[in-house]
Amino acid sequence: MTSIEKQGAAAKAAASFLATCPTKTKDRALESIANALEEKKQEILDANAIDMQAARESGMTPALLDRLALDSGRIDGIAKGVRDVVALDDPVGRIEKMDKRPNGLVIGRITVPLGVIAMIYEARPNVTVDATVLCLKAGNAVILRGGKEAFNSNNAFVRVMREVVREAGLPEDTVSLVQDITHGSVDEMMNLTEYVDILIPRGGAGLINHVVKNAKVPVIETGIGICHVYVESSADLDMAAKIVFNAKCRRPSVCNAAEALLVDRSVAAEFLPMAKKLLDEKNTELRGCPETVSILGQGAVTPAVDDDYHTEFLDYILAVKVVSGPDEAITHINEHGTKHSEAIVTNDYQVSQRFLDEVDAAAVYVNASTAFTDGGEFGLGAEIGISTQKMHARGPMGLAELTSSKFIIYGSGQVRELGR
Amino acid sequence: MTSIEKQGAAAKAAASFLATCPTKTKDRALESIANALEEKKQEILDANAIDMQAARESGMTPALLDRLALDSGRIDGIAKGVRDVVALDDPVGRIEKMDKRPNGLVIGRITVPLGVIAMIYEARPNVTVDATVLCLKAGNAVILRGGKEAFNSNNAFVRVMREVVREAGLPEDTVSLVQDITHGSVDEMMNLTEYVDILIPRGGAGLINHVVKNAKVPVIETGIGICHVYVESSADLDMAAKIVFNAKCRRPSVCNAAEALLVDRSVAAEFLPMAKKLLDEKNTELRGCPETVSILGQGAVTPAVDDDYHTEFLDYILAVKVVSGPDEAITHINEHGTKHSEAIVTNDYQVSQRFLDEVDAAAVYVNASTAFTDGGEFGLGAEIGISTQKMHARGPMGLAELTSSKFIIYGSGQVRELGR
Repeated sequence: MTSIEKQGAAAKAAASFLATCPTKTKDRALESIANALEEKKQEILDANAIDMQAARESGMTPALLDRLALDSGRIDGIAKGVRDVVALDDPVGRIEKMDKRPNGLVIGRITVPLGVIAMIYEARPNVTVDATVLCLKAGNAVILRGGKEAFNSNNAFVRVMREVVREAGLPEDTVSLVQDITHGSVDEMMNLTEYVDILIPRGGAGLINHVVKNAKVPVIETGIGICHVYVESSADLDMAAKIVFNAKCRRPSVCNAAEALLVDRSVAAEFLPMAKKLLDEKNTELRGCPETVSILGQGAVTPAVDDDYHTEFLDYILAVKVVSGPDEAITHINEHGTKHSEAIVTNDYQVSQRFLDEVDAAAVYVNASTAFTDGGEFGLGAEIGISTQKMHARGPMGLAELTSSKFIIYGSGQVRELGR
Repeated sequence: MTSIEKQGAAAKAAASFLATCPTKTKDRALESIANALEEKKQEILDANAIDMQAARESGMTPALLDRLALDSGRIDGIAKGVRDVVALDDPVGRIEKMDKRPNGLVIGRITVPLGVIAMIYEARPNVTVDATVLCLKAGNAVILRGGKEAFNSNNAFVRVMREVVREAGLPEDTVSLVQDITHGSVDEMMNLTEYVDILIPRGGAGLINHVVKNAKVPVIETGIGICHVYVESSADLDMAAKIVFNAKCRRPSVCNAAEALLVDRSVAAEFLPMAKKLLDEKNTELRGCPETVSILGQGAVTPAVDDDYHTEFLDYILAVKVVSGPDEAITHINEHGTKHSEAIVTNDYQVSQRFLDEVDAAAVYVNASTAFTDGGEFGLGAEIGISTQKMHARGPMGLAELTSSKFIIYGSGQVRELGR
């Protein structure tokens, strides 16, 4: 057995224990994790300082350094997040559609944990805690494989959490961190069919595509977002400009940020300068089709190449295309989008309904910013990632998406008719 | 493009059309399929005669010949099954949990089709129609790859259905049959990530394991059933014997049939002869542990080897093991079962609840035969297969399991606070 296989076997044993664990025990362990994060803050900050030092020496950009950095306030925020999860309802043990059949069998469906969840993720160390507490609340064990930049921070978090869950009477292998941070460990996790029930990759497109294409364990594809805002001819153009600005510039590095703007030809000449004015506040680079260039002027827009409409910039860059109307817009979105979040700005009732019906994406908006695609904003209470696939879960995944179900059947000696 | 890739692309285009297709149009097409099966009965029977002739010449067993055979009554039965699906509610377009958030956004989840469903299956030609109509009702296109023994029958069914759906105004590529019946086409379908949203293999353990281990498209693992009946010491032994007999002998060739019997030591001497008496009616071979052999006598039982407890016999063979009580029984089941259907016979309330809680399977029974694991029996109206995995669907899959969902959001200009 390799060390990751051993981790898998230990996680599976822990999951089997957690599956029948009362809500109270899980919540007590979570509460203890929150307390321990506050009490052992210095230990965690010391570990983070080592990661930060190495990152600075390697020339990491300020934006990435900021994602990696922990401070007292951030750890307090993480602890508060844990307590928020304590307050959520236990997603396990909910019985749906229980009913008595004509033959007297009482059949229902009860939610159960998935089992062992593996997560592969990059930079941000808070994911280590967030993912663990969501998995634990839903009765799952978790195997974490974080990025190498956050290795010491992640280890400190996991050390604290393992100690606390053991004290709370749960198996410490409820959570474990993969110690091998080479690419080899990613590949090994993708093939751990005997132990892993579900693998969730979170990170850049390179990581996610690699996992989706090569994993043998069941995967939930997350968070690559080539999202569009489509400004239809009847739109309130002032509202539209604010939505475009918000969808692009609120946080360009996250997956729900817009990467492309489509605008109807009949309003393009009026709208594009309005949008540009707001986008200029963040020095947003526009990459436009020939019509966009002719409206805004050659110096103001980079001519777009086809690739620009297939790119998740994650930066202050926006592809722009003038379209003839809803037909072209919907077709463009369904061909170029990643089925994440798509928005229309319109005041036409029929067009709004058509957009909701025909656009194939996890979240489809009328007159609102794509930036809302998030478990908290959607009222799920928490989020472990955003699924862009259709199987199992779609869109922001909360606690319910970390469960499966089983049928339970109460009988009184029923047998089934022979030969039917 | 290979011919299967072309089929994939055509199915994807059809799925895009079907996704927004009104219930009435789908139901009209289904009704026409039912009528056409009756009208073109002779054409289908002629094709089936060719398959039967070849099967007889190849020395196919009578049991398999019976699975392959069609006659007028069977086709009428298939047509009736189609009309039963017409009568079911459309699973698409159901809106769940729609709610107004504090910021005024109205957010809900609506069910949508999965897209393109691929099915790989063996012998029985009725699956060709059953799968097509369930996929169509749920707004999906389907690519079928049936067994070579039923190739002519399957082609006749698909030809009739394609003609009818075209006449009903739907794309004929709503359903298509893979014409290459070598192993190569199975492998090609498993890698059709660009076109296939979900792949459902139905057949023997060899096929299913091959697909689960090697597919790159999302798979739903179905129907390998090493199911147990556990007779606990407090059981009504007469009821227990009838349940064991039914679970084993009702239809030994199907996945919900029991393959192993566990019996508590304290009642084994009384119970095993009772069970054997019923099982003897079907000349069921018992493969028992040493205690079973000593109770029933050497001539009456084959001594079991370890493999017998890991085998899906699909025949009149039953592995038997005497156990010390619920602890050993539950551990044995969770280690040897395939997470399909598991039953306890008991009159002890606490033990019954513990069995329901701790046994990890798609369907867990108290005092009833495992033979009930079936979409129709569970009240789902129909069934496309029985999932033994935890992701997406577990247990019998009906129309609801052939859908995904998307979030729809009605706004009035909302943008999200910056930098949060």
